[in-house]
Amino acid sequence: MALIVQKFGGSSVADAERIQNVANIVADTYREGNDVIVVVSAQGDTTDDLIAKAEEINPRHSRREMDQLLAAGEQISISLLAMALEKLRIPVISLLGWQAGFNTSSGYTMARIKKITTDRLNSELDKNKVIIVAGFQGINKYGDVTTLGRGGSDTSAVALAAALHADKCQIFTDVEGVYTADPRKIPNARKLKEITYDEMLELATLGAQVLNNRSVEMAKKYNVELEVLSSLNPVPGTMVKEVAIMEKMLIRGVTKDADVARVSVLKLDDKPGIAFKLFDRLAAKKINVDIILQSNGRDGTKDITFTVNEANAELAKECIKDAFPNVADEDIIVDTNIAKVSVVGAGMETHPGTASRMFDALYSAGINIEMISTSEIKISVLVEKDQADRAVSAVHKEFFPED
Amino acid sequence: MALIVQKFGGSSVADAERIQNVANIVADTYREGNDVIVVVSAQGDTTDDLIAKAEEINPRHSRREMDQLLAAGEQISISLLAMALEKLRIPVISLLGWQAGFNTSSGYTMARIKKITTDRLNSELDKNKVIIVAGFQGINKYGDVTTLGRGGSDTSAVALAAALHADKCQIFTDVEGVYTADPRKIPNARKLKEITYDEMLELATLGAQVLNNRSVEMAKKYNVELEVLSSLNPVPGTMVKEVAIMEKMLIRGVTKDADVARVSVLKLDDKPGIAFKLFDRLAAKKINVDIILQSNGRDGTKDITFTVNEANAELAKECIKDAFPNVADEDIIVDTNIAKVSVVGAGMETHPGTASRMFDALYSAGINIEMISTSEIKISVLVEKDQADRAVSAVHKEFFPED
Repeated sequence: MALIVQKFGGSSVADAERIQNVANIVADTYREGNDVIVVVSAQGDTTDDLIAKAEEINPRHSRREMDQLLAAGEQISISLLAMALEKLRIPVISLLGWQAGFNTSSGYTMARIKKITTDRLNSELDKNKVIIVAGFQGINKYGDVTTLGRGGSDTSAVALAAALHADKCQIFTDVEGVYTADPRKIPNARKLKEITYDEMLELATLGAQVLNNRSVEMAKKYNVELEVLSSLNPVPGTMVKEVAIMEKMLIRGVTKDADVARVSVLKLDDKPGIAFKLFDRLAAKKINVDIILQSNGRDGTKDITFTVNEANAELAKECIKDAFPNVADEDIIVDTNIAKVSVVGAGMETHPGTASRMFDALYSAGINIEMISTSEIKISVLVEKDQADRAVSAVHKEFFPED
Repeated sequence: MALIVQKFGGSSVADAERIQNVANIVADTYREGNDVIVVVSAQGDTTDDLIAKAEEINPRHSRREMDQLLAAGEQISISLLAMALEKLRIPVISLLGWQAGFNTSSGYTMARIKKITTDRLNSELDKNKVIIVAGFQGINKYGDVTTLGRGGSDTSAVALAAALHADKCQIFTDVEGVYTADPRKIPNARKLKEITYDEMLELATLGAQVLNNRSVEMAKKYNVELEVLSSLNPVPGTMVKEVAIMEKMLIRGVTKDADVARVSVLKLDDKPGIAFKLFDRLAAKKINVDIILQSNGRDGTKDITFTVNEANAELAKECIKDAFPNVADEDIIVDTNIAKVSVVGAGMETHPGTASRMFDALYSAGINIEMISTSEIKISVLVEKDQADRAVSAVHKEFFPED
């Protein structure tokens, strides 16, 4: 007898058949004697369809009305899932974000959960009911509907698990767990039994799309045990927790992130405050900068190179012009033909040879490394975009030789 | 400067173009210096689509989850209409049923409005905002979403107008007002400038589908001035109020209701309590009985004939068998090949000749009258179903001769 939070994404509830499938999973968990709270996203393309409707009417709509609109998506999926459970004779009730007590900040379309008022939830659990909660949504202090932004349903689920001290938070997806590399591209990628929060965070940041970063951060903060598993194939998934057994693996995974642009500005005066001037402006525009490299040029100047998301490349260029009006146009270089390949794993901290093994594997495959960045549990390199898949394959083979 | 409540049905907000059209009407009213509250139904077929989804998953769903599901429909339409008004630079806010303070009884799918808590509404009006309210929905004492049943958005609008002492409640539809007969069938049907609540109630009950009955009852009770008008054609509509000028018309309209069955039971013992026995059973099954006729047969027996909705005909037959187990099957007669044609108008009270003029018109057209029922402001007759349209035409011509 445990309290289990289960989260199902939009593709898991896309149609009547899949909703029945989810209902069966939930019913099984309930019949085993557990308290069950289920968090669901909007069905399949519902959110995109609603956004398209809004864009057609007024592309410059307020974010407040957008949240009011989008919240209808989960309202539909929770009631349909509740009906599917009623069919299985499971006592059940669906709750919207505000009914489930999700109090958020007032920033529409990207609200943060401030507090979950658990009265209603506890009272329904006391009635022995399965609770279906609308993910992604809450209510602010004005009594207005808010949404949590991309991946918000994961965050809803983890926050519920934290607030109710659930024994486990299961995130159901269309893959069976967290893999050492993208299994669609690397055929012998292995599923991990366990992974730490920090490793999961690095993997998520570096391109693995299994879990939303905010939800992992929250799970780490409140020590919520996460399990990533498949809604279609009932096999054990990957546990995400504070301390994970290493299974004799040095690294947890190899990832690729093609959404990268490299921006360089050359021949800057070599005096203090230059870097601050630039990165302060980038921060003001909310541009996340990843790898930064500063090098001295000849003749008393220096070059700064950094990477940003591709969508921010032009905006970053404007920041440079703004910070250094005298820099010549040809000294600002934006390169989007680039991808980031990373290895992640707490094990590498104590094995300094990891980097050299990675570089060696890339060298053997004839792939040029354009930039390098390391942290305690990851090593990232930039390579040419069309070499990225080959790079992942070569590095994965080095650390996970074919059986 | 007045407070005006405007209600738009599902077809008025069916797509982006129509939503823009509604936004223009609302914006014009606001720019004339009025406070405006708008009540909207779900877009076009949304409600039917949601019902179909629910039926596919579980035809025996709870009504509580059905209401949770259906309420998403208006959530979508209110936010889209708000966005359209934002485009016109009108300050606007959309409110769901619970946000607008609609407290209802707890009976799902057919809740009654108990009270409107107007704090939020007044505070948004104070900010000079147009308020878009989701019609058809509210919240019960458990904090659960309820819906008001068919025509519920009309009721929402009238209730709002009553609670806020609005100067007028405008119901926008796809016709230009209330007509003396169905204008699609009777080409010279005339639009009424004014009509009383009672007359409107009779017309609605007798088949005119312009306004929902509950909303008219509520408007009468709280003396809310209603106007029925077109969202597509900006001409004055029909005012519904306590006292209406008669415009020299004896009657307000001629209607047809084809959803009628006549049920007869013959050769009952002629003793007291017989009628009670039958109609008590019909009431227990919630079968509405309209016209009732009791006649003495020969040989000390009597016959009872009454009309019900076609859908209730078989159930009524069962009630008869239940009440009078000894009646022979051939003495229970159900006739569905029948329609009710009515004239409505307060003017006929003081003009006793109305009935005879109606019967004369039908006789001249060669139409046989099968049953007659009268009240202070209406006369209904039953005729054969395939003669009903001709009957309406003949009676309308009698009271509204071609110009």
